[in-house]
Amino acid sequence: MRNFNENTITDAVLDRITDAGQPRIRQISEALVRHLYAFVREVRPTQREWEQGIEFLTRTGHMCDDKRQEFILLSDTLGVSMLVDAINHGAEDGVTDTTVLGPFFVQSAPEKKLGEDISGGMEGNPMIVTGSVSTPDGKPIANATIDVWHSDDDGYYDVQQLDKIGDLAMRARFHADAEGRFRFWSIKPAAYPIPHDGPVGDMLTAQGRHPWRPAHVHFMISAPGFEQLVTHVFVAGDKYLDSDVVFGVKDTLIREFVRKDAGEAPDGRMQNTPYYHLNYDFGLKPDANKAHAV
Amino acid sequence: MRNFNENTITDAVLDRITDAGQPRIRQISEALVRHLYAFVREVRPTQREWEQGIEFLTRTGHMCDDKRQEFILLSDTLGVSMLVDAINHGAEDGVTDTTVLGPFFVQSAPEKKLGEDISGGMEGNPMIVTGSVSTPDGKPIANATIDVWHSDDDGYYDVQQLDKIGDLAMRARFHADAEGRFRFWSIKPAAYPIPHDGPVGDMLTAQGRHPWRPAHVHFMISAPGFEQLVTHVFVAGDKYLDSDVVFGVKDTLIREFVRKDAGEAPDGRMQNTPYYHLNYDFGLKPDANKAHAV
Ligand SMILES: [Fe+2]
Ligand SMILES: [Fe+2]
Repeated sequence: MRNFNENTITDAVLDRITDAGQPRIRQISEALVRHLYAFVREVRPTQREWEQGIEFLTRTGHMCDDKRQEFILLSDTLGVSMLVDAINHGAEDGVTDTTVLGPFFVQSAPEKKLGEDISGGMEGNPMIVTGSVSTPDGKPIANATIDVWHSDDDGYYDVQQLDKIGDLAMRARFHADAEGRFRFWSIKPAAYPIPHDGPVGDMLTAQGRHPWRPAHVHFMISAPGFEQLVTHVFVAGDKYLDSDVVFGVKDTLIREFVRKDAGEAPDGRMQNTPYYHLNYDFGLKPDANKAHAV
Repeated sequence: MRNFNENTITDAVLDRITDAGQPRIRQISEALVRHLYAFVREVRPTQREWEQGIEFLTRTGHMCDDKRQEFILLSDTLGVSMLVDAINHGAEDGVTDTTVLGPFFVQSAPEKKLGEDISGGMEGNPMIVTGSVSTPDGKPIANATIDVWHSDDDGYYDVQQLDKIGDLAMRARFHADAEGRFRFWSIKPAAYPIPHDGPVGDMLTAQGRHPWRPAHVHFMISAPGFEQLVTHVFVAGDKYLDSDVVFGVKDTLIREFVRKDAGEAPDGRMQNTPYYHLNYDFGLKPDANKAHAV
């Protein structure tokens, strides 16, 4: 095991990992070596380019903290997150399509009651969101857990401006009612550039790409016996729908955020200014590995 | 540009990077997307495995600081560093073979005079290193800059124990004399495990691999008009020569570190204990892009 050249080193490295305890680790390691080497052999990096690659990954790691996940941004902007999504979630009748989680999910969002306003006092256009959660054949899923999060009127998430606003906002966890329905108030989100003041932003610039995502509301919906659904609903008409920097748009996830005049809102509340209404009815996929709870 | 599936997303992403300003950036980006996607399509990671990949890269980034470069360790242990080395440096008559830089190089090592002891008072077996720097056809390269660094008798570098030893040691920069020759004293280095208390160590464990490198002395040699040489000289007989964790061993880089009895050393110094003698004569490759200085 010495004196490798650019062709013999592949087998030398593959030979070295045959003792991996778990077959899956061995499989992933072998595939990684083969494809990584094929990449390196094709581009034939200079020593300086290799150093630049090391520096890029190091800077990406150093950008990651509890409020920023630069490696998720990298995976998202290279389309890898949507590829993994596509591998794990094919289109199915009655099941809502999935899209990327994105870097702004927070594990323990504040629990809210149905109908509450989650805007946290942020300025913007009032928006009511209504909808339902059901099985693929339309049976309501009572008490489904619904995490929602979205950007403000300027395109920033709460976690990007905690210094200014002091607390989480435009983010909450709800539980659907006995008929699987939910409703809440917030403000209409805006399109936004992903955080691009780091290495991923530098990559986009070098690749001649803009950093924008079309406006959307994130949903993560769970219920016992069903696969967790991670998705967005996009604002119809947004100018970035065809060039989402993370390749996350699917037609089935686009909805009109309907402009309504002041008056009685769908939840019976008297709204004294114009507002927007989004309705989306979600379908969850039964989890093949678990007994159904419905 | 919507509704991608696992097959159509490749072209969608490739289409998006056609505006890259520099052709080389475009070429590297395209190759990265194609090979990365081929890897993902082959291993078909679950969402949880993808998250584990993100976490691994994040931990690797967080391990990097001014004394530790975990991404270089990752590249080294996956054999990528030696692959890049092989691509950039083929074997040539009269030119010393190259090997990995490794993570312990320090930019501004202390300048020392030829013949000085660089051990910094570390305990171990005394060692004198002698040698020369010349062109491929044997003409001396006067005043060549020679960076050397190596581990201590327990296999640790100075930068791994600065808290304890207080200052750099077993590390120096020399300039060859008018005949291209050099000599210095230190202690004989030991084999060592690469730092394996981080994600790369976890990877090695999962892959069923040991973290050891055979004992060696690092050399980086530069002179105007020549390509910089980055290499090691390995200790003949070391038990890890055939299983170097970073795949860095080449037969031409192995030398006997000859045990000598007390007495007059090759530099004329009276040595009153036994010591080791390493001699290595280096050949530099003329830099095709620059005028020769010799
Ligand atoms: Fe988002
Ligand atoms: Fe070393």
